Amino acid sequence: MSNYLQRAQKVFDRINQLAAISEQATGITRTFGTPEFLQGSALVSGWMHDAGLQTRMDNIGNVRGRLLSKNPGAKTFVIASHIDTVINAGRFDGPLGVILGLDLLEQLIINKTELPFHIELIAFSDEEGVRFHTTYLGSKVVAGTFDNSFLDRTDKTGTTLKQVVQSLGSNIDLLTADAIPVNELLGYFEVHIEQGPVLWQSKIPVAVVTAIAGQKRIEITLTGMTGHAGTVPMAIRNDALTCAAEFVLAAEKLGKENKDRLVVTVGKLDIDGSASNVIPGKVLCSLDVRSPDERYLDIAYQQLKDSCTKICSERKIQLNWNLVQQTKPVVCDSGLNVLLKQAINKSNIELIELVSGAGHDAVPISAVAPVSMLFVRCFEGISHNPLENAELADVAAAIEVSDRFLEELIKKHL
Amino acid sequence: MSNYLQRAQKVFDRINQLAAISEQATGITRTFGTPEFLQGSALVSGWMHDAGLQTRMDNIGNVRGRLLSKNPGAKTFVIASHIDTVINAGRFDGPLGVILGLDLLEQLIINKTELPFHIELIAFSDEEGVRFHTTYLGSKVVAGTFDNSFLDRTDKTGTTLKQVVQSLGSNIDLLTADAIPVNELLGYFEVHIEQGPVLWQSKIPVAVVTAIAGQKRIEITLTGMTGHAGTVPMAIRNDALTCAAEFVLAAEKLGKENKDRLVVTVGKLDIDGSASNVIPGKVLCSLDVRSPDERYLDIAYQQLKDSCTKICSERKIQLNWNLVQQTKPVVCDSGLNVLLKQAINKSNIELIELVSGAGHDAVPISAVAPVSMLFVRCFEGISHNPLENAELADVAAAIEVSDRFLEELIKKHL
Repeated sequence: MSNYLQRAQKVFDRINQLAAISEQATGITRTFGTPEFLQGSALVSGWMHDAGLQTRMDNIGNVRGRLLSKNPGAKTFVIASHIDTVINAGRFDGPLGVILGLDLLEQLIINKTELPFHIELIAFSDEEGVRFHTTYLGSKVVAGTFDNSFLDRTDKTGTTLKQVVQSLGSNIDLLTADAIPVNELLGYFEVHIEQGPVLWQSKIPVAVVTAIAGQKRIEITLTGMTGHAGTVPMAIRNDALTCAAEFVLAAEKLGKENKDRLVVTVGKLDIDGSASNVIPGKVLCSLDVRSPDERYLDIAYQQLKDSCTKICSERKIQLNWNLVQQTKPVVCDSGLNVLLKQAINKSNIELIELVSGAGHDAVPISAVAPVSMLFVRCFEGISHNPLENAELADVAAAIEVSDRFLEELIKKHL
Repeated sequence: MSNYLQRAQKVFDRINQLAAISEQATGITRTFGTPEFLQGSALVSGWMHDAGLQTRMDNIGNVRGRLLSKNPGAKTFVIASHIDTVINAGRFDGPLGVILGLDLLEQLIINKTELPFHIELIAFSDEEGVRFHTTYLGSKVVAGTFDNSFLDRTDKTGTTLKQVVQSLGSNIDLLTADAIPVNELLGYFEVHIEQGPVLWQSKIPVAVVTAIAGQKRIEITLTGMTGHAGTVPMAIRNDALTCAAEFVLAAEKLGKENKDRLVVTVGKLDIDGSASNVIPGKVLCSLDVRSPDERYLDIAYQQLKDSCTKICSERKIQLNWNLVQQTKPVVCDSGLNVLLKQAINKSNIELIELVSGAGHDAVPISAVAPVSMLFVRCFEGISHNPLENAELADVAAAIEVSDRFLEELIKKHL
C-alpha cells in the first residue's frame, strides 16, 4: 500500500469514528449545538491537540488548531471545512475536508517542514444551517461577517441560537474577536466531495474549483381557475398546471442552451387542492437558478422572469414572482489555483476544472481572503444521503495533490 | 311574478329546507346512511306523500313516490336525481332534480292530467359515493345492476355497507326486488345543474344533454434520478418533472386539438421528496380523459399512452402507466331528446346541446331504459362547493321546459 493510500485509510478511519456519533440511532445527524455535535467536536479537537496543534473551540463552536510559523508576524493560511451535517447525512460532506486537512498538517509536522506562514485548521460548527435555517454560522464568525441578529433565531423547540451558543460556554460578546483580521489572512483551502456526478462519470479523482455559483431562488405562484375535469371544455380552461408545465420546459430549455454556465431547476411544484378530477386552479413552484458568472446569472434571471410573464399573459394566468434568496458567485483565486493545477499535474492526474453549484464555507471566507477548493470524486455524485461515498484511491489522490499544493505554497512564500 | 317563477320559488324554498340538514354545523354534508341522511330522506318522503304519491323507502334507501296511470299495466317513466351530497357541498347538485321533479308531479296532480304511463319520482340515496368510495348505489339497485359484493365495503370507521343498509331497516335480500323490470321501464328524465361554465357564459338557462362522457383515469409514475440542483449539469440530468411537464403539455395539446369531443386533465402531480434545491427523481401524476364517443375515447387513450411512452423514452425516464378506472360513454335517447328540444323551442329558449363530462344516475339507468337529461345553468359553473348556485329565472325556465316535455311525452303515449 502506498503512503498516500495509508494516509487515506487513516482519514477514512477517523471519518468513520466521527460518523459513529449521531443524534439518531441509524444514519448520521449532528446539528449545531446538540450533545452529539459537542461529542464530535471534542473528538476532532482531541485529534488536533494530539497532533500538536494549538487547539481551542471558539465562541461559535468552531474547533480551531494552529500550526505556527517561527515568524510570529506571519500571516495565516486557513485549511477548513465543516463537521455539522444535514439530517440523515453521508460521512464525507464536511468531515473529509477537516480530517484530510488534519492529515496534511500531521505530515508537515512529521516532516518538520519550516512554515513561512501559520496554518489554521478549522472544523466549522455550522455550515448546513439545519437547526436555525441559516448557513455558514461558523465561517461567518471567522470572516467577521456574522450578523448578531441571527442570535434571536429559534429552532423548532423555541430555543434561540443565543441560548445554544451560551450553552457551549461561549460569550456572545467575543464572537467578533474570533474573526481572523483581514490583513492577517493569507488564503483559504478546502477539500470537499464534489456532490455532483462529473468526476464520477469521468473517472478522475479530483478537480480544481474555479468558482462557486451564485444562486437566485424564486417562489412562483400561478393562479388560474379551478374547475371540474369533466365539465369545463378545453377551450375555456384556465389551467394553472399546464401553464406551470410550459414554464418548466422553458426554464429547462434555457438551462440546456447554456449548459456550460447555468443550471436551472424546478424542484417543488404544489397544486392547491389537487385531485385527479379537478383542473388545477393554483400552482406554487420553486425556481433555482445558478451560474458562476454574475452578469450572466442576472441575464438568465431576467430571461426566465420575462418568459414566465409571457407564458402567464398568453394563458391569462395571474403570476406572483417572488425572489426569495440570492447569493453572488464567488471566483476562486487564480493564484492559488495555479498552484493547485501544478500539484495536479505533478500527481499525473488529468486536469479538470469545475464550478461548484453547491455553496461552501469558502463563500463567506471569500469576502476576506483568496479562496481555493479541491473537489474529490464521490459515488454517483450522491450527497446528503447515507449512500454518500468516496473511494480510498480518490482520497489518496486528494492527499497527494494537497500535499504538493501546500509544498508549492510554502515554497512560494519562503 | 309568473307562475313558473312562483313554482321555482317553491322549489328553492324546499331546496333550502333540505340544505339545512347537514352532518356539519357549517356547509352541507349528507352522506349515505347517516342520521342527517335519514332526516333529509324523511323530509323528501313527507313532501312526496303530501303531494299524493304512493311513497316508500326502498331497501337501498331510495325515496320513491309513484303517480299512477289509470291503466294498471302501463309502463313506468322515471324522473329522478339524488339527495346525498359530497362533503361541504352546494345546495343544488342532486336535490334540484328531485324537488323540481316533485313540482312537475304536483302540477300534473293539480291539472288532473290523465297519464298513459305511471311516473315514479326517485330520490336516489347514494350517487356521490363519498362514504364507501362507490358510485350510483341507489340507481344501480333500480336498474337491477347492484353488485352484492359492494355490501362488504367498509367506511372509514370500519362499518360495512351491509351494516348501514340493515340499519335503515332494510332487507338486503330484497335489493333485487327493488329493481324496476326492464320491460316495465318507459324511460328516464333527470334535471341537474350543469356543473360547468358553458350555460353560465352563454347566458342560456337550460341545455339538452346529448351524452354522458365515458372516462378513463390513469395513474402515471415517472422515475428518473434525483440530484442536487446546483451540482448536476443540465446535460446529464434525468429530471422526472421536466418529463412530466412535457407530457402535461402534450395531453393539453391533444385535448385542445379535439376540443369538441375530448377533455384531458392532469389534476394531480406529486414530486417525491420535493425541495427547491433537489432535481425531481420521481413524479406521480393523474390523467383524466373523457369523451362522449367511445371509439374516439379509445383512440385518444392510445395516443396519450404512445405520447407518454415516447417522451419518457427520449428522456430516459422509466414509465409506469396504470389505467385505474374506466366507464363507457352513455348516449342520451334521441326520441326523448326530440321532445326535449321541442319543449325548449316552445319555451322560446335558444337550443344548446351539451355533453355531460360528469357522471350522473342516468349512467346506470341507461343500461335498462332510454335516458334524457336537462342541464340547468349554474353560477360560474361552480359545483361541489358551497358557492354552487342557480338563478331563480333559470330554474323557472327548467320547470317550463320540463312541463312541456312531459306534456309532449304524455301526448305521444296517449
